[in-house]
Amino acid sequence: MPSFDTLPSADGLWTGLTRLDGQPCAIAVQDGRIAWTGAPDAVPTECADLPGHAGQGALVTPGLVDCHTHLVYGGQRANEFAMRLAGASYEEVAKAGGGIVSSVRATRAASEDELFASASARLRSLLAEGVCAIEIKSGYGLALAHERKQLRVARRLAAAHGVTVRTTFLGAHALPPEFEGRSQDYTDLVCREMLPALHAEGLVDAVDVFCERIAFSLAETEQVFQAAQALSIPVKLHAEQLSDMGGAALAARYGALSCDHIEHLSPEGVAAMAAAGTVAVLLPGAYYTLRDTQLPPIAALRAAGVPMAVSTDHNPGTSPALSLLLMANMACTLFRLTVPEAIAGITVHAAHALGLQDSHGAIAAGRPANFVLWDLQDAAELAYWFGQRPVRAVVRQGRIAEGAV
Amino acid sequence: MPSFDTLPSADGLWTGLTRLDGQPCAIAVQDGRIAWTGAPDAVPTECADLPGHAGQGALVTPGLVDCHTHLVYGGQRANEFAMRLAGASYEEVAKAGGGIVSSVRATRAASEDELFASASARLRSLLAEGVCAIEIKSGYGLALAHERKQLRVARRLAAAHGVTVRTTFLGAHALPPEFEGRSQDYTDLVCREMLPALHAEGLVDAVDVFCERIAFSLAETEQVFQAAQALSIPVKLHAEQLSDMGGAALAARYGALSCDHIEHLSPEGVAAMAAAGTVAVLLPGAYYTLRDTQLPPIAALRAAGVPMAVSTDHNPGTSPALSLLLMANMACTLFRLTVPEAIAGITVHAAHALGLQDSHGAIAAGRPANFVLWDLQDAAELAYWFGQRPVRAVVRQGRIAEGAV
Ligand SMILES: [Zn+2]
Ligand SMILES: [Zn+2]
Repeated sequence: MPSFDTLPSADGLWTGLTRLDGQPCAIAVQDGRIAWTGAPDAVPTECADLPGHAGQGALVTPGLVDCHTHLVYGGQRANEFAMRLAGASYEEVAKAGGGIVSSVRATRAASEDELFASASARLRSLLAEGVCAIEIKSGYGLALAHERKQLRVARRLAAAHGVTVRTTFLGAHALPPEFEGRSQDYTDLVCREMLPALHAEGLVDAVDVFCERIAFSLAETEQVFQAAQALSIPVKLHAEQLSDMGGAALAARYGALSCDHIEHLSPEGVAAMAAAGTVAVLLPGAYYTLRDTQLPPIAALRAAGVPMAVSTDHNPGTSPALSLLLMANMACTLFRLTVPEAIAGITVHAAHALGLQDSHGAIAAGRPANFVLWDLQDAAELAYWFGQRPVRAVVRQGRIAEGAV
Repeated sequence: MPSFDTLPSADGLWTGLTRLDGQPCAIAVQDGRIAWTGAPDAVPTECADLPGHAGQGALVTPGLVDCHTHLVYGGQRANEFAMRLAGASYEEVAKAGGGIVSSVRATRAASEDELFASASARLRSLLAEGVCAIEIKSGYGLALAHERKQLRVARRLAAAHGVTVRTTFLGAHALPPEFEGRSQDYTDLVCREMLPALHAEGLVDAVDVFCERIAFSLAETEQVFQAAQALSIPVKLHAEQLSDMGGAALAARYGALSCDHIEHLSPEGVAAMAAAGTVAVLLPGAYYTLRDTQLPPIAALRAAGVPMAVSTDHNPGTSPALSLLLMANMACTLFRLTVPEAIAGITVHAAHALGLQDSHGAIAAGRPANFVLWDLQDAAELAYWFGQRPVRAVVRQGRIAEGAV
C-alpha cells in the first residue's frame, strides 16, 4: 500500500459527473478542498483553466461515512460462528472461550502494532468502497491501558490512511471479568479514572454506553453521561437493542449525537430524539446476523423527522460486515428504507451522527474534497446490487485514493 | 482489462499454502493443469525444480463455482426496486414497465455486443472473488432469436474471460407476452423449434424449466424434459420455490443434475432427489431479497445425504447478487448451513450440480488449475465476514487471473 501522502492530488476540475438526482455536474478541487460545484455550463472562469479530470458520466456521491464501528480488536470469532452453526450450545461456546470475553482477552493480549495491522486490513476494505469518514469505538480493552491502546490505534489509522476518524470511548461496553458482580465499581472507574485520563490525552471525541439488561443500567448510563458532560464531550448510546430500557429518552436529554440499534424504541423515545435532534443509527448487519425479527420503528422515525443513519456496526461478534453499500441494501431489503433514505443514511445523516455535518456527507464548496465516482448509471443501483464493488474512483481528503482518473 | 491469453501462466510449484483443514500443502501446475498436490515435504522430485510461487501461508480453496445464474440480460431493475420501497403497488410497478416483462423487453432490444458488455461487467465482479466456473441461463429472450443471443453471449463470455461456462436453455422461464393465454402453444414452440435449433448450434449444455403455478405446469415441465431427453441433454429444474408442485420428484425421474430453490420441497421430493443423486441448489440471495420465510428443508436434505450447492441465482428481479462468498454467509446465517457445508456448496457440490465434478470443485492432480489464495487464516472466515473481498490471487484455467504472486 502506498503511503497516503504519495497519492496523487485530486486538485483540478472534475467534469462529466452525474449527481444522484441525475443532473450533470462538475466539481473544482483546489488545495484539497472543494472550491466550487455546480452545473457543467456554469463553471466559474477562475476554475475553467484547472487541470481536468474526466468523469465520463460516472455517478458521483459524497464520500461515504460509517458512523458506528468497533473496528479495532484482537483476534476474530469465525470459529465461534462455525461452532454455533455446528450446533454448539451457548455454554459450549463459552467453554471454548467464545463470546465478547474472547475479544476482550485477545485485545488485551495484542500489541498496539498488532491491533493496527489487523484493523488496517479491515479498514482498507471499507475505504476501497468509498468510506471517507469512520467512527471507531473502544470497548474491548475494558481497562485503562487497553482502552487507550484501542483509541491510539484509531488515531494512527486516521493518519496512516488519510481518513477522518472519530473516536468513541465505550469503556461501558461490557463488565470486565475481573469486576464480575461489581458493576457500580466498574462504572465508577470508567467515570472517574478512565474517561478523564483518555480525554486528557486527546483520545476521546465522544462517549458511548451499552445500555441494556445484559450490560449497563439506565442509572449507570446517566452516570457516564454526567462524567462526559462535565468534560464537554458529546455522548451517544447503544439503546433499546434487546429491550426498551428508556435509554433513548435519557440520551436525548443529554443532547446525544445519536441513539444506535433502537429496535425496541418506544414512541416516547422517538419523540425525545426528534425534539433533541438526535440521529437514529440503524444497524441492519447486526439485525441480519442475529436473525432478529424486531424491526426498528422506521415509520415512526420517518413521521417524526428523525434523521436515520445506516452503519456497519462492524464488530467480531454480531456484525463482521465490511461493506457499507451492503448495509444500504440491507436497510432497504430488511428495514424497508427507501433508496434515497438509505443513501442519505450512509452519507449526510451518518456525518450528522458524528458531528461532522459541516465537513462531510455532502459535496459543497469549502469542504475537504471527499467524493466517490461509481460505475453506475442510476442512483438506485447503489442499494440494488449486493455484494458488488462498483467504485470507479475515490477522492479522499483531497487525494485520488482509489482508482485512476 | 488485459486479454485472458496475456495473463501470466500459473505453471510452477506453489508452496506455503494452507488447506481448508489447516494442513500445509503445495500444488504443482504444469501446462495449465494440476500435476500434483500434497504435503510440502512430499513434493515429487520431478516437481521440485519447477519455478516457485510463494503462498506465504495463504488459505487455498478450489476455484469457486456459481452453479445457477441468469447473468445475461438487458437493462437492470434498480428503478423497480426503488419504486417498491417507495410504496408502489404491484400494479403501479407493472404500469411503469416493471417485472420480468421489462427484462424480456430490454433483452430483446439489446444487441449481442450490448449484452456481452453488461454481462462482462457483472461477471468480472464474480471472477474477482474467485469464481472459475459458472452456469448461465437463457430465459429473458423467450423467442428463438433472442434466446440464441443470450446463449451466444454466454459462450463469448467463456472465451473472453477464460472461465468455464455451462449454458442452460431456460426457454420455459416465463410465458412471453405474445403467447398470453397460450401456454401450451409456447411450450410446443420451446420443445419443437427452439430447443432443437439451439442444440444443433452447440449452445445448450442443459435444459431448465421454471415449474410453478405462475409459470409452467408439471405436465409442461415433463414435455420439456422429454424433448431434452430425446436430444440427450441433461435437465435441471426451478422447483418448489413458491409451492410444492411435485417438480423435484419429476426432475429426479429424469435424472436431473439439480433441483433449485426448493423452499417448499416435500419429504417425497427429498427422497426422490437422494435416490437419483440430484443436487439441491440453495439460493439464499433470492430468499433474502424476497424476504421469504419458508426455509428449504435443510435438515431433511442433510439426513438424506442430498448434496447441497449454494449459488447467487444472479438475476435482475429477485437476486441482484454479485458475491458468491456473501451467498455462503447467507447460507449459514439464514439457512443454518454449517461452514463446511457452505464451502462445499460453492465448490465441490456446485461443480456436481453442473456435471463438472471431474474437472472442477476440488484441487486434484489431472484437473485444470483452478484455485484461489485467500488473505485469511481460518477456513471459517470464508463464511464469517460479509461484504469483504479477501482474495489474494486467483488461478483460473492455468493462469494467474487475479492478484499477483
Ligand atoms: Zn455497536
Ligand atoms: Zn433462477
